Amino acid sequence: MKNYFFGLLLFLNVSQGTAQNIQVNQDRLSLLIKDLSAFGKNEKGGSDRVAYSSHDIAARKFVVEKMKKLGLDVTVDFAGNIIAKKAGSSPVLKPIAFGSHIDEVPNGGDYDGPVGSMSAIEVVQTLIESKTMTQHPLEIIIFTNEEGGVVGSRALAGKLSPEALLTKSSSGLTQAEGVKAVGGDPERILEVKKAEGDYAAFLELHIEQGGNLEREGIQIGVVEGIVAIEWWQFTFKGFANHAGTTPMNMRKDPMLPAAKFILAVNETVKSYEGAQVGTVGKIEAFPGAGNVIPGEVTLNLELRDLSSEKIWEIYHVLAAKAQEFSDEYGIELSVNHQEVASKPALADPLIQKAIEQSATKLGLSTMYLPSGAGHDAQEMAGLAPMGMIFIPSKGGISHSPQEYSSPENIANGANVLLQTILRLDKELP
Amino acid sequence: MKNYFFGLLLFLNVSQGTAQNIQVNQDRLSLLIKDLSAFGKNEKGGSDRVAYSSHDIAARKFVVEKMKKLGLDVTVDFAGNIIAKKAGSSPVLKPIAFGSHIDEVPNGGDYDGPVGSMSAIEVVQTLIESKTMTQHPLEIIIFTNEEGGVVGSRALAGKLSPEALLTKSSSGLTQAEGVKAVGGDPERILEVKKAEGDYAAFLELHIEQGGNLEREGIQIGVVEGIVAIEWWQFTFKGFANHAGTTPMNMRKDPMLPAAKFILAVNETVKSYEGAQVGTVGKIEAFPGAGNVIPGEVTLNLELRDLSSEKIWEIYHVLAAKAQEFSDEYGIELSVNHQEVASKPALADPLIQKAIEQSATKLGLSTMYLPSGAGHDAQEMAGLAPMGMIFIPSKGGISHSPQEYSSPENIANGANVLLQTILRLDKELP
Repeated sequence: MKNYFFGLLLFLNVSQGTAQNIQVNQDRLSLLIKDLSAFGKNEKGGSDRVAYSSHDIAARKFVVEKMKKLGLDVTVDFAGNIIAKKAGSSPVLKPIAFGSHIDEVPNGGDYDGPVGSMSAIEVVQTLIESKTMTQHPLEIIIFTNEEGGVVGSRALAGKLSPEALLTKSSSGLTQAEGVKAVGGDPERILEVKKAEGDYAAFLELHIEQGGNLEREGIQIGVVEGIVAIEWWQFTFKGFANHAGTTPMNMRKDPMLPAAKFILAVNETVKSYEGAQVGTVGKIEAFPGAGNVIPGEVTLNLELRDLSSEKIWEIYHVLAAKAQEFSDEYGIELSVNHQEVASKPALADPLIQKAIEQSATKLGLSTMYLPSGAGHDAQEMAGLAPMGMIFIPSKGGISHSPQEYSSPENIANGANVLLQTILRLDKELP
Repeated sequence: MKNYFFGLLLFLNVSQGTAQNIQVNQDRLSLLIKDLSAFGKNEKGGSDRVAYSSHDIAARKFVVEKMKKLGLDVTVDFAGNIIAKKAGSSPVLKPIAFGSHIDEVPNGGDYDGPVGSMSAIEVVQTLIESKTMTQHPLEIIIFTNEEGGVVGSRALAGKLSPEALLTKSSSGLTQAEGVKAVGGDPERILEVKKAEGDYAAFLELHIEQGGNLEREGIQIGVVEGIVAIEWWQFTFKGFANHAGTTPMNMRKDPMLPAAKFILAVNETVKSYEGAQVGTVGKIEAFPGAGNVIPGEVTLNLELRDLSSEKIWEIYHVLAAKAQEFSDEYGIELSVNHQEVASKPALADPLIQKAIEQSATKLGLSTMYLPSGAGHDAQEMAGLAPMGMIFIPSKGGISHSPQEYSSPENIANGANVLLQTILRLDKELP
């Protein structure tokens, strides 16, 4: 089937002109991803290229040089975002932007971020080599510190104040120190803010970070949107006491309602129809000694869904349960809401369609799916019509040295990115 | 009732001679405890006199000077224990030893340790002033770093090697560095080991660290023994994954069996007759991020009882439940046993009787009870017949700035200690 379509496609492409024929160089793209992975590779095979680290800085230099060699106009903005521009034929059109990030979580993998970033470079190189000129200017953006809070894209969205940069990053530096270390200027971070309409569109290619595409045997995921994420810190306050001398019936042990709550999160989230997820990823008991009944237990609840309403509906059910469990054990409950990404970032329908059509024309199978993970694209969605392309990730694993996507799948994604750019270049107003 | 008994008691005492008439000076004892509490008092009213800290060292100097002023023969052994000797009339008898500790947990109180330590000094001062000579030599022991692992008494019991002193203490120093800082010699720690029979008896007066005496309105607790303590680390191993992209039914979340286990510990321990206690005092999820399904959850189970058999019986029930819960969620379970105080330290029946009789003669109400907390007396029980005297602690609180025992209760305890020493001086072989 694939071969048949591909034949048909070549035929159609030829009839439509040169631009639709061009394809990225799979081997060159693979090599580029491999070369990048050397920066921060640790003994366990993982990547220690956390944002602002020496490895990140060296990798950024490598990327900038690659871009410059292609003749692009490369700058680093005050947020540390690397921006490479290729002019378009129209003097009035706004750029089509695309890119991703190259920083990793501690002991991360080689694909989450690099696939979209290196494919962006490969796509531009392919356009240059085939002498394809787009009407819109093109802009590659390699965002600063995606893994540590989508710092670069939040700055573009105008959501980062110099004060917000005082938090620590995984590198040990504050965000402000880190931004400075990668060539930005934290004092002037507000100046990088873009307005709605400054870009014609934004596209990001990324590994799925979930097992849906692999499980279904699908080559390209058309992202419907990026889920909203809410965090709450639940604090169960009892009374710290001596674990040896306090009889069982005299205890105010906050571990007990916390344990019931953890089970309730799982049961409640599963009881709803749909793809929502709920996680208790961290828990701490204070003082946290084997011989002391904890005085306090804190835990984090995360809920994600494409619908904020559903998230809050589930939260209210869970908060009521937490109160019920706390009352049962004489425990004081407090809940502190932390906004993470309180609105879902929906992909633009026109771009979703363009991605699907581009993939289909390339003979690639597609499915529509939400992104459960956050991406720079979610911030960019506030500035421009946004679209995301997913490719399969082996076992759905990400943020791990075991993260893997095949060269073929990566090249498929890059080709879809290339063709979507060309399609949007014509279709966008 | 009390007044009647007290009148009778005075009458009886007079008929038996001078020694049974003497009483400690309550005001002087209160002042001594107050003076000691100044060392390391923090802004919150708590005590930061952790072992080996500058506060501990200053407090030790204060204590040594007090002892020397009484004309006692004061030495510091290689483990840093302060030992003050008062000769007896018999050249062949082994000493009756008594004492406690003056170090505190971080942000601790003023009574846990100091009550027994200062009362020991007050008892000896009372004996000196009343010119009461015992047959047995008397020995006050102020043990090194009780709160950080009964270091001084373990050294006397021969259970501390120089290697075991390499662990860190709350002060930031290693145990070896700490022992050196308080005048000991970690290299020669094995030399402080005592043999069974080196003491005629060991007595320790201490606050209850539990609410039984206060709740029952009893003045003196006759300790039956110090419970055995066992620790196990339970490790629930699942698979760390992205909290946004991993569907609920694709997770291997170790939080879930861990939560069920916490509830099972409480239920199972309570289901047995008796005073046993079980605690999960610490829990950690790895990597411990709000947006990652934990790959691993570790928690600590502590069980305490006067019967080791019962502890292990309960453990086996709980271990089976942990396995059952782990199987239910596809989680790998491993358990690591850590020996804390694997044998109960039973108080000597003759000494228990002597304490009860001394208290009753003083007109004080008594009850027998186990000590759920560990004490230096547990180590000393391996060297000599051991007895412990408890006095009420307000609200059962200990290891806290809120720790409190009244001057009357403390003086009662000191008088019982004094009379028990005099009684044992006659009764012991």
